[in-house]
Amino acid sequence: MRGLFITLEGGDGSGKSTQSALLTRWLHEQGREVVHSREPGGTDLGLELREIVLHRRGHIAPRAEALLYAADRAHNIATTVRPAIEAGAIVIQDRYLDSSVAYQGAGRVLDATEVRSLSLWATEGLLPDLTVLLDLDPTVGRSRLDEARTRYDRLESEQQEFHERVRAGYLELAAAEPDRFLVLPATDSIDDIAARIRDRVSALL
Amino acid sequence: MRGLFITLEGGDGSGKSTQSALLTRWLHEQGREVVHSREPGGTDLGLELREIVLHRRGHIAPRAEALLYAADRAHNIATTVRPAIEAGAIVIQDRYLDSSVAYQGAGRVLDATEVRSLSLWATEGLLPDLTVLLDLDPTVGRSRLDEARTRYDRLESEQQEFHERVRAGYLELAAAEPDRFLVLPATDSIDDIAARIRDRVSALL
Repeated sequence: MRGLFITLEGGDGSGKSTQSALLTRWLHEQGREVVHSREPGGTDLGLELREIVLHRRGHIAPRAEALLYAADRAHNIATTVRPAIEAGAIVIQDRYLDSSVAYQGAGRVLDATEVRSLSLWATEGLLPDLTVLLDLDPTVGRSRLDEARTRYDRLESEQQEFHERVRAGYLELAAAEPDRFLVLPATDSIDDIAARIRDRVSALL
Repeated sequence: MRGLFITLEGGDGSGKSTQSALLTRWLHEQGREVVHSREPGGTDLGLELREIVLHRRGHIAPRAEALLYAADRAHNIATTVRPAIEAGAIVIQDRYLDSSVAYQGAGRVLDATEVRSLSLWATEGLLPDLTVLLDLDPTVGRSRLDEARTRYDRLESEQQEFHERVRAGYLELAAAEPDRFLVLPATDSIDDIAARIRDRVSALL
């Protein structure tokens, strides 16, 4: 059986973890092996880097930040994702290169094309078979997070305007690669979203 | 007064620290402000990354390693080196992009041109005004290190053949940019080497 690489994208509070769990349950029912991954922090090395990029005090130069995300990605893809796909597993990953482009490219001072090129160099050109974008008005995402009372990390603490640019960046990426992206309104019901993701994954299996 | 960016390159045990100290003393006598820097580990963030790339247990994917060095460099240049040069100081740095090209490019599995491009992206194209290459037969460098009984880090522990490829890589880089490089045999006397470095720096001041 051929492996698959599926990534989940969207702002915090958009339901990526919930959908990842539902898709996993369904894939297990189909007898498929599933490997979970996330970025940043999908590996032991990545956890150290995640701590630095998300929780470290003090300024990090924008290019240094982009390079740290790319380092995490390079290690994760080389040591976890590629071997799993090659062994026939379905890898479901929370965030991938589209996050970098949307957050660092559209949201920060760096050129989106350069950030994308950096990721593709890091991963030797690996693109997902499917990217699910859970599209959400950042105001709604923020209020969901407030309710869950989670600790805010560096990115979550950025102002509203930043998250609106991120959302616009995501939608541009999806428009540019309609075959790879499945864009779903994150305010639809959990079951509806899960069903639409299953339909698309079924077609790929 | 215009600042300068001077980098010292060469294998471990080639005398970079000694020459950096002598050049600093002389520059102070000329009334110049000197800022020392090193890579990896020239900043607080860099120290954390240096610990990871040099002393962490376990495999690091080659592209991840290259990206970590580039992240350290991006932060160091943006927050330490550029501001110092712009303020008129002379920055003397232990290792810079030529180390990455020589060690990761010539020595490892990555393409040297790509490693160089990565560094130039990280630093927005900053090249040194002068790069002093202390050229040394790696066998000699190793025996100097043995005498000093220093702890061996990940790179120092690589085998002899690797260090010979690094040396050849350095010499190729110097041949390609003769105006930027000053190549000196590291087995010459400390005073002779220091005098030749001073001559070249004098011409730049």
